[in-house]
Amino acid sequence: MAQRVIIIGGGAAGIGAAGAAKAAAPSAEVIVYTEFEDVGYSPCGIPYVHGKEIPDFQRLFLADRQAYVDAGIDVRYETRALGFDPAARTVQIEGEDQAGYDALIVATGFGYRRPGVPGEDLDGLYYVKNIRRAMAWDEVLDSVRHAVVVEASPLGLEMVTALAHRGIDTHVVDPHPWALGELCDPDTVAPVQESWAEMGVTMHWDTKLQGFIGDGDGHVKAVATSDGELPAELVVVATHKAPNNALAVAAGLRTGSTGGLVVDDHMRTSAPHVWAAGDVCEIPHGLGGLPLQGLTGSHAYAQGKVAGTNAAGGDRAYQPVYVPWAMVAGAWMIGGAALGEVAATALGVPHVVGRATGISRARYFPGVRPITIKLLAEPGTLRLIGAQMVGGEGIKERADFLALAIRKGITLYDLASMENVYSPPIGALNEPIVTAAQAGVAT
Amino acid sequence: MAQRVIIIGGGAAGIGAAGAAKAAAPSAEVIVYTEFEDVGYSPCGIPYVHGKEIPDFQRLFLADRQAYVDAGIDVRYETRALGFDPAARTVQIEGEDQAGYDALIVATGFGYRRPGVPGEDLDGLYYVKNIRRAMAWDEVLDSVRHAVVVEASPLGLEMVTALAHRGIDTHVVDPHPWALGELCDPDTVAPVQESWAEMGVTMHWDTKLQGFIGDGDGHVKAVATSDGELPAELVVVATHKAPNNALAVAAGLRTGSTGGLVVDDHMRTSAPHVWAAGDVCEIPHGLGGLPLQGLTGSHAYAQGKVAGTNAAGGDRAYQPVYVPWAMVAGAWMIGGAALGEVAATALGVPHVVGRATGISRARYFPGVRPITIKLLAEPGTLRLIGAQMVGGEGIKERADFLALAIRKGITLYDLASMENVYSPPIGALNEPIVTAAQAGVAT
Repeated sequence: MAQRVIIIGGGAAGIGAAGAAKAAAPSAEVIVYTEFEDVGYSPCGIPYVHGKEIPDFQRLFLADRQAYVDAGIDVRYETRALGFDPAARTVQIEGEDQAGYDALIVATGFGYRRPGVPGEDLDGLYYVKNIRRAMAWDEVLDSVRHAVVVEASPLGLEMVTALAHRGIDTHVVDPHPWALGELCDPDTVAPVQESWAEMGVTMHWDTKLQGFIGDGDGHVKAVATSDGELPAELVVVATHKAPNNALAVAAGLRTGSTGGLVVDDHMRTSAPHVWAAGDVCEIPHGLGGLPLQGLTGSHAYAQGKVAGTNAAGGDRAYQPVYVPWAMVAGAWMIGGAALGEVAATALGVPHVVGRATGISRARYFPGVRPITIKLLAEPGTLRLIGAQMVGGEGIKERADFLALAIRKGITLYDLASMENVYSPPIGALNEPIVTAAQAGVAT
Repeated sequence: MAQRVIIIGGGAAGIGAAGAAKAAAPSAEVIVYTEFEDVGYSPCGIPYVHGKEIPDFQRLFLADRQAYVDAGIDVRYETRALGFDPAARTVQIEGEDQAGYDALIVATGFGYRRPGVPGEDLDGLYYVKNIRRAMAWDEVLDSVRHAVVVEASPLGLEMVTALAHRGIDTHVVDPHPWALGELCDPDTVAPVQESWAEMGVTMHWDTKLQGFIGDGDGHVKAVATSDGELPAELVVVATHKAPNNALAVAAGLRTGSTGGLVVDDHMRTSAPHVWAAGDVCEIPHGLGGLPLQGLTGSHAYAQGKVAGTNAAGGDRAYQPVYVPWAMVAGAWMIGGAALGEVAATALGVPHVVGRATGISRARYFPGVRPITIKLLAEPGTLRLIGAQMVGGEGIKERADFLALAIRKGITLYDLASMENVYSPPIGALNEPIVTAAQAGVAT
């Protein structure tokens, strides 16, 4: 059993790992190094405070410092790890001696991919991540009239919706032909884009970011794009969450094609006594094993728990992922699991499609909204391989379900004969998953 | 291919059957006999109009008479079938000649089990079923101050909530020790009962109905119970939905232990050329094959589609049922699938339990509500055999999912390692199904 477990990083993966390590080995010394002032808050809530849907930042904190002390977890705040040595089993801490470990967990997270255009050093570029900076930015937002969001990533979508809610004239710039281009099919996201247009958002698709233009005093005043110059006092840079892998690479750990650390099913890295979890890793996709990096806080937390358990002497495995996803965007919820039609086509994965539009409640019940579901299946067997959804209610629950259905080899035949709840305020006579599956069976 | 398909009954099963028969054999003559003035409306919506959540009864109509004419379905309104002869393949219609058929579908639905106590013939006893009578009752409700609901069945729960919403002093009388006693565990329904108490509803559990007491002018004025006499100008009788099997029994069709018609997996009855669908049938439970009767409108409609397809020469099978259920009751949604703990214990089914309380959104997101989930599994294999839930959101979608999970042999191990969406407005870091499964695995 490990005597001392060191964790680098205090995000969802690091905190999940710390708790699991302590649970697996209550007598172990568990130390978390974080360069920030806080741990145990939800960065995922930040866009909703900006959008005034959550009244204040204080609510995003899950636990105060004392809670970690009480749990026997030694969090070293504002303490930067400069490197580690797997052979010597030591971590170099800024301004301190080296700290020895029996087990190390690398949970260094992500950094937004730099746009790589002129003007990146201007003030007014907002990378949404740290809660204290978000509090400061929130005051800035009060005087912002024009904003540009760079890339319609999941965070980009949340920020577009938040800024529009806040009454700011918002433009979004993205190199893809539609929003969430890497995740989402165009028909899935089309209603979201329509609702943004109604909210006054201006969208620039197939548009290349060319640079940030300063006002002469070091502050951004506009964004240069292939679709022209867009005035903006604020730019939200919502580019891909690249793995923050510098320490691990310097220590010789193996990375994969995404730049994420390669881990086995126990979240072990290529170095002995070193585990990793969260956005710094890559994880095999359940269909075909393609590596994925930059998943969600829920994935990071679950991976952290697996890494922490194993680092402290336990034995837990992490499954390949099918990536259920869902979010509120504009006036809709969108979501899905595993492959969309565009991704399946791009990867050369043969598929049949079943598609249907149903409703979220009885057709006569107030608040009823449409739900469109597209299911992708392997030809012949009709094994489910993907889903895309857009609708008014219940998208998260269906995404969870369909991701597990893909993992378990459930077919369109199974889904076409599925029973469903019919209760006017919460469920319609026909479940749209069933209708979509029936359409797929009939093709 | 059938030339003439006759359907007795114009509810969800009959109308589902008519549409499916016409789809399977467009040239067939499809005739629906109904004793009522209307088909193609949703009786399930009636309690919500009474509760003022749906503004009017007109919304409950799905289609007008012309829609059935246009679909080639010959609906004979206010026309009673008096009997049928499987040997001669004829139906006797009141006031008409016998009608010959190639295929017959019995979709005669249910009647509420008579309470079997004195005073059943008094005015003021309301059996919620027909929409025209509901319209008349809705006017009556305006002057009702005290109401009693007999039995806390699913309909009883809806009516209790509706009457309380409407400001009527409402009592509920039930022989079981808690609400939904045949379906629901006491811990699942406890929050519902608390919320009813807050709404001013008075509950009488373990209470025997003894009779209805008249005012001398033929109208009910009170209900006699083992818990005393309860004043009431209105009594909603929400007893079990017994199979309306008189015609079928007279024709010699085989019934099972529930009184429902025995059908095979193609919804064929024991008589040649006669199919059945909906509440008049019994259907095997997927776990152990115990017969179930009196399911939901969604089941009736799906069974009707299977019966109609097969009666018209097609070939579709209906699966054994795991009965996902969910409803709004008081301030909560409750639901489940297959066996609860009380039912499993009563049936002698060995089981382990995993239980957890989670939340419906991020813990800091406005509108977040608790969700308590209890999962039952077979000891050893940990195959899921049942679920019970109570919470604020997403119960219907989870019930659908868990019923299919039971059918497909999914285990607590699968659910304990399930991925889940984390997005603050619609999903928490930890999905409560996962947490409950983890608790079950740890037992």
